[in-house]
Amino acid sequence: MDVAARIEKALIDAVGSADQPGCPPRLAAAMQAAVFPKGARVRPRLCHAVASACGEDQPGATEAAGAAIELLHCASLVHDDLPCFDDADLRRGRPSVHAAFGEPLAVLAGDALIVLAFQTLARASCEPLRMAKLINTVGSSVGVPRGIVAGQAWECEPEVDLSHYHRSKTGALFAAATVCGAAAAGFENPDAWRDLGEKIGEAYQIADDIRDAASDEEEAGKPVGKDAALGRPSAVIRFGLNGAVAYLHDVVADAISTMPPCAHAHELRKLMEQEAKRLVPKRLAQFAA
Amino acid sequence: MDVAARIEKALIDAVGSADQPGCPPRLAAAMQAAVFPKGARVRPRLCHAVASACGEDQPGATEAAGAAIELLHCASLVHDDLPCFDDADLRRGRPSVHAAFGEPLAVLAGDALIVLAFQTLARASCEPLRMAKLINTVGSSVGVPRGIVAGQAWECEPEVDLSHYHRSKTGALFAAATVCGAAAAGFENPDAWRDLGEKIGEAYQIADDIRDAASDEEEAGKPVGKDAALGRPSAVIRFGLNGAVAYLHDVVADAISTMPPCAHAHELRKLMEQEAKRLVPKRLAQFAA
Repeated sequence: MDVAARIEKALIDAVGSADQPGCPPRLAAAMQAAVFPKGARVRPRLCHAVASACGEDQPGATEAAGAAIELLHCASLVHDDLPCFDDADLRRGRPSVHAAFGEPLAVLAGDALIVLAFQTLARASCEPLRMAKLINTVGSSVGVPRGIVAGQAWECEPEVDLSHYHRSKTGALFAAATVCGAAAAGFENPDAWRDLGEKIGEAYQIADDIRDAASDEEEAGKPVGKDAALGRPSAVIRFGLNGAVAYLHDVVADAISTMPPCAHAHELRKLMEQEAKRLVPKRLAQFAA
Repeated sequence: MDVAARIEKALIDAVGSADQPGCPPRLAAAMQAAVFPKGARVRPRLCHAVASACGEDQPGATEAAGAAIELLHCASLVHDDLPCFDDADLRRGRPSVHAAFGEPLAVLAGDALIVLAFQTLARASCEPLRMAKLINTVGSSVGVPRGIVAGQAWECEPEVDLSHYHRSKTGALFAAATVCGAAAAGFENPDAWRDLGEKIGEAYQIADDIRDAASDEEEAGKPVGKDAALGRPSAVIRFGLNGAVAYLHDVVADAISTMPPCAHAHELRKLMEQEAKRLVPKRLAQFAA
């Protein structure tokens, strides 16, 4: 089975374990809508790529980690789209969960996906000590003080620490993907992979700013122009559009340079270079050449 | 240290691990407000009581389980109080989290407490296999298909399965308390304690119905009369007030009779009888004599 198929199977199995007799049917439907049809699955792909580069030996651990991280990403999208945050009606080109199922089920589907992520890790068929490391890493990356929940909460503060904001809101889950990939493969010091994850997260945040400023709604699959409208920090507002594209490529090159020595570094480096090309809207790719 | 002090210390340590430099200050304050000042801590007390009855040998496991369960209970209160559910401005005699901090921080504080519960379990100083059992048990009791999130979601369905609703919304976390207490103490078949937890949960649900119908706001520490106003299922609506009090005592007696054989059954039985008396508003206690 290739990596994309392993990622989807792990997610289908996880959501399937919730969507069982006795489950409120609309909640199950809301959870399914939050996770499928698939997005780019960027974080689990990164997790699998790092595990593979580190000589993966317990595939169940990688699959559980990748699925847990993606479930948490989906949960954060569902809650971020709520009326009290972004009030977004569209996500991945379809109605957002609260638009389709109402606000109460969107709150609950997000809660349920957070719980499911940890259940998925606890059920992983792998060494208990690796599992504990995965749960701790994923927990810190999504919780408080420095996970995505904390990152989102910076939007509710009168004074925002921008570096904490970006590193928590986007970087933390990417760092979880690289660290968990290494931990799942039994890499001796998995935290050595944190820098790479954080830098890739920064690259995605910049790419997201670029798409928000320069894509149309169809290409982005969600409403665009939100950063300027809501006065949110953005690399495009700071550097201009071309400047942001150039900056993105610097950050990706920097990320690649921080990769720890490992068994299959070459393949991982190639994958990251491909991914960097995919990040920029087609009509802007020329600026990055 | 007595049990009450151990429970508070575990909660203070857990929330303290989140409330660190780098944490958005208003999120930290919202989390503190959700967990302190203390409520009755019924679920962790039950967890500790079962662990002690089973001959507790790894106190760190019990403390982590009790804290995790209470954090999840607090998270569920924060989300249940949101405008899209109960829209309650008062909780434990003080402003609810969304009333004090606004809706976005109430959503995020609930999310953060869910994550913190699993981090607390993953950090427990105990055997890795016991930890995995605790995480699995707590996960099922709060998640989907049959945990408290699923229970709450039954309120969003056009047709409600009342037995699933009560067992999930209230019983599940009590069952987690008894099963985790036994698991934390290394009891051979911890799931044998599930029935006891579910029945105690049923008793608390009935007591809650009674308080909602018969207490004033000051005694209950939250708005009362919600069940009748919102057309929610209630033992008082079904059996009348005196009937509900009698029914409560039958359920407690039944619960006590299902207790699995264990080293210190006597103390646990005594504690449950005391607790049952505490459940009924003072002016109704005569009906239960």
